[in-house]
Amino acid sequence: MAQFDFVVIGSGPAGRRAAIQAAKLGQSVLVIDDRKKLGGVSLHTGTIPSKTLRETALNLSGWRERGFYGQGYRARQDIRSEDLAVRLDKTIAHEVDVLEHQFTRNGVKHLVGRARFESPHRLAVDREVGDQRITEIIEAEKILIGVGTTPYHPDNIPFNGTSVVDSDRFILSPRLPRSLVVVGAGVIGIEYATIFSAMDVPVTLIEPRDSLLDFMDRDIVDHLVYLMRDRGVDLRLGASVRHVVFNERDEPVCVLADGRLVSAETVLFTAGRIGATGSLDLAKAGLTADARGRIEVDRSTFQTAQPHIYAAGDVIGFPSLASTSMEQGRAAACHAFGKDCACADSNLPYGVYAVPELSSVGLTEQEARRRGIAYECGIARFRETSRGHIMGSHCGMLKLVCEQGSGKLLGAHIIGEGASELIHIGQAVIGLGGTVSYLVDNCFNYPTLAEAYKIAALDIWNRLQHSAVDSLQPQFAKVC
Amino acid sequence: MAQFDFVVIGSGPAGRRAAIQAAKLGQSVLVIDDRKKLGGVSLHTGTIPSKTLRETALNLSGWRERGFYGQGYRARQDIRSEDLAVRLDKTIAHEVDVLEHQFTRNGVKHLVGRARFESPHRLAVDREVGDQRITEIIEAEKILIGVGTTPYHPDNIPFNGTSVVDSDRFILSPRLPRSLVVVGAGVIGIEYATIFSAMDVPVTLIEPRDSLLDFMDRDIVDHLVYLMRDRGVDLRLGASVRHVVFNERDEPVCVLADGRLVSAETVLFTAGRIGATGSLDLAKAGLTADARGRIEVDRSTFQTAQPHIYAAGDVIGFPSLASTSMEQGRAAACHAFGKDCACADSNLPYGVYAVPELSSVGLTEQEARRRGIAYECGIARFRETSRGHIMGSHCGMLKLVCEQGSGKLLGAHIIGEGASELIHIGQAVIGLGGTVSYLVDNCFNYPTLAEAYKIAALDIWNRLQHSAVDSLQPQFAKVC
Repeated sequence: MAQFDFVVIGSGPAGRRAAIQAAKLGQSVLVIDDRKKLGGVSLHTGTIPSKTLRETALNLSGWRERGFYGQGYRARQDIRSEDLAVRLDKTIAHEVDVLEHQFTRNGVKHLVGRARFESPHRLAVDREVGDQRITEIIEAEKILIGVGTTPYHPDNIPFNGTSVVDSDRFILSPRLPRSLVVVGAGVIGIEYATIFSAMDVPVTLIEPRDSLLDFMDRDIVDHLVYLMRDRGVDLRLGASVRHVVFNERDEPVCVLADGRLVSAETVLFTAGRIGATGSLDLAKAGLTADARGRIEVDRSTFQTAQPHIYAAGDVIGFPSLASTSMEQGRAAACHAFGKDCACADSNLPYGVYAVPELSSVGLTEQEARRRGIAYECGIARFRETSRGHIMGSHCGMLKLVCEQGSGKLLGAHIIGEGASELIHIGQAVIGLGGTVSYLVDNCFNYPTLAEAYKIAALDIWNRLQHSAVDSLQPQFAKVC
Repeated sequence: MAQFDFVVIGSGPAGRRAAIQAAKLGQSVLVIDDRKKLGGVSLHTGTIPSKTLRETALNLSGWRERGFYGQGYRARQDIRSEDLAVRLDKTIAHEVDVLEHQFTRNGVKHLVGRARFESPHRLAVDREVGDQRITEIIEAEKILIGVGTTPYHPDNIPFNGTSVVDSDRFILSPRLPRSLVVVGAGVIGIEYATIFSAMDVPVTLIEPRDSLLDFMDRDIVDHLVYLMRDRGVDLRLGASVRHVVFNERDEPVCVLADGRLVSAETVLFTAGRIGATGSLDLAKAGLTADARGRIEVDRSTFQTAQPHIYAAGDVIGFPSLASTSMEQGRAAACHAFGKDCACADSNLPYGVYAVPELSSVGLTEQEARRRGIAYECGIARFRETSRGHIMGSHCGMLKLVCEQGSGKLLGAHIIGEGASELIHIGQAVIGLGGTVSYLVDNCFNYPTLAEAYKIAALDIWNRLQHSAVDSLQPQFAKVC
């Protein structure tokens, strides 16, 4: 029976990072994953493929050039389904390669098979070797559960793998449908809806709630909603799908709760995912999952109810982003092996890789208000920058939130090209305790979109001039 | 005779910003420019048109997609000269519009004409009104000279406006030559050489010195040199042009000092610019310009030898970047009207809009060594990030320089897509006194190129582990 200091179940962002961290701390580490290829959902059907599809869609459609050549501009007149997959395979193969190399270099062992608990420190791994099924028993001092999630399949949706699909299935062989219905306007739903809309596919986006992306700033979300509608995305808020039938051409038709019908060549269901904990036999480890398969943890140490068993990544719920999952994995491994870890528990950025991108860090205006903070906001539109003109950007904006008294930057929120990169400027200012005066006084490269930070900061400064400037720090109040 | 608190000669980045700053401080402001359209060289023949041409070239050539579809990939099979100008006119018109609106909003007056000094406080402005030539006399309490530069025309280069041109002439009606010789590998020369090389024009770049861009980090410049040569740019360092003759097909042929010949359809001469001070009658203001037409100033106040006359922008020499010129203009106006100004005098970013972009902030490794600082460096290649794979980036890198003892970030240097935007993350960390540990601990959006900061910071951390870790701050030493 094999023994390891640290056994990680799942090789997605959380598991991968935890494993490498523990190995760097000198522990013997085994990663178990039931896919033949390392990387988890993130690499095979989630983050990486959807972002690659997005890049492909923007190139093929000529999206970035439409500001100049007009909305009718197309880089390629006919985009075919097979064009979509070209970059996917290359990118995924490359990522798997990098990951395998990382494991090898750090001495992390890897076992393909399905893990289940036999006891709190013992795992059985069911494997297929040739045409035989064998079970290996592994003893572990510490364990991390990073099994991720699988799409939720409610009973009223007749998934058939072709015209009614979930997002994991969809990306395995992406097609360009004549029309698309996306059910569920969470991060995944919004990403796919806007990517296909950019390729001129008529899209209907159906969401039972009355609002979208509630963790992001309202102004940014409103801008997104405006842009989606402006491009002809049929956004149905407060609408839920009662069931799906098929018409005489065998096309799916969504029957909404209010009786309205929405048909399309493809229905993509993205309304929720559940923790992939079903086969883990958690009870034998003295653990339980909630109704959605999720495991509860201490959000600072990532320990489950069993102190030697950790869980991280999508399986513990919000925010379910690869970036935060990696940090959770790192923090868990550090805690497991007695290392202090100055791990980022706040100041986390959120990125939504829609078309256009959205990204956010720190407090939204709504959150600042909820906490009773005296705040001020400033806005810059990308079209106010020269780089914006050069790129032909008609949309895109940056919103900053700062504390009134100190001028300290509290939040930055961006929608537009490059948002997920640009957000880290604001993140650094927030993380290092910088004020709006830093941004006002700073010299930015010209022409850049980053200049929007200066413009938004000046917008705040102008607003603050009419209020309590006296309490600001000297250089802030004197700034020109 | 009209009187103003502040008269600004030239409406480029320095003049424009100084004028608006003074107006915001309640002064009466007049801007004199001899072009009919506001904006100076930067807007009409410099920064804005060349960056717009760059964007057009990248779109038309499909440059950003070649990493995936191969170096033979072309978005457009035949790029014609007339395609190059399409975006130029639109972008320039838009920028002029924004600038005029800014002046109107701030009550800045504008006079089209050629200014010359009559005395230290008095200017004569020669104007054409209808078919009449008139001269207006203006009295000014304070004056700013922001006249910029014009291309240097040495006697041995037979400029003819068609096949032998300077960069200002070239961009007015950009053509796509069958072959191009660029003389002078400064910022402008490198930008044009790489832009046309990206459109598959055979380019020869001739530079008398043995090195390029000496203000940037050597590793970054070496990477650029490698990439240029790899793409077939014929880079001739240590080679100077003795004179230019024309062959039997009336094509220009550069005769180098070593006797070698280089011919091309177009010779673009970018070796130096001179201050546009020739017609200013500086002597009447008690001022002089140097042999290259430049005016010397106090580099903190931007005052000339006459304390009430300021100069800013390209006319005072290095770095001759629109971004720094704006800050200089702002600082000059603040000083002129008694406002403290926490103006950025260090931590200035440099951007070179070549293909690929280069950008830099803080100390280079060479400068750290020259100053005797105990430093360490870390490097990340874009291909080490997932975003890099998705974009198909085979090139691009980030280099960080930090102080050994404190871990404080001293410099950041980038070559690759988006460099001029990404540099501001490092700039914020440097400007706010952050250390490499901030970058190691920080959670970045995934997938982004910004993750290169974390990878480079980890690279530094790994190197420092083998040296004096004890002196690092606790959380830095313990970081995983």
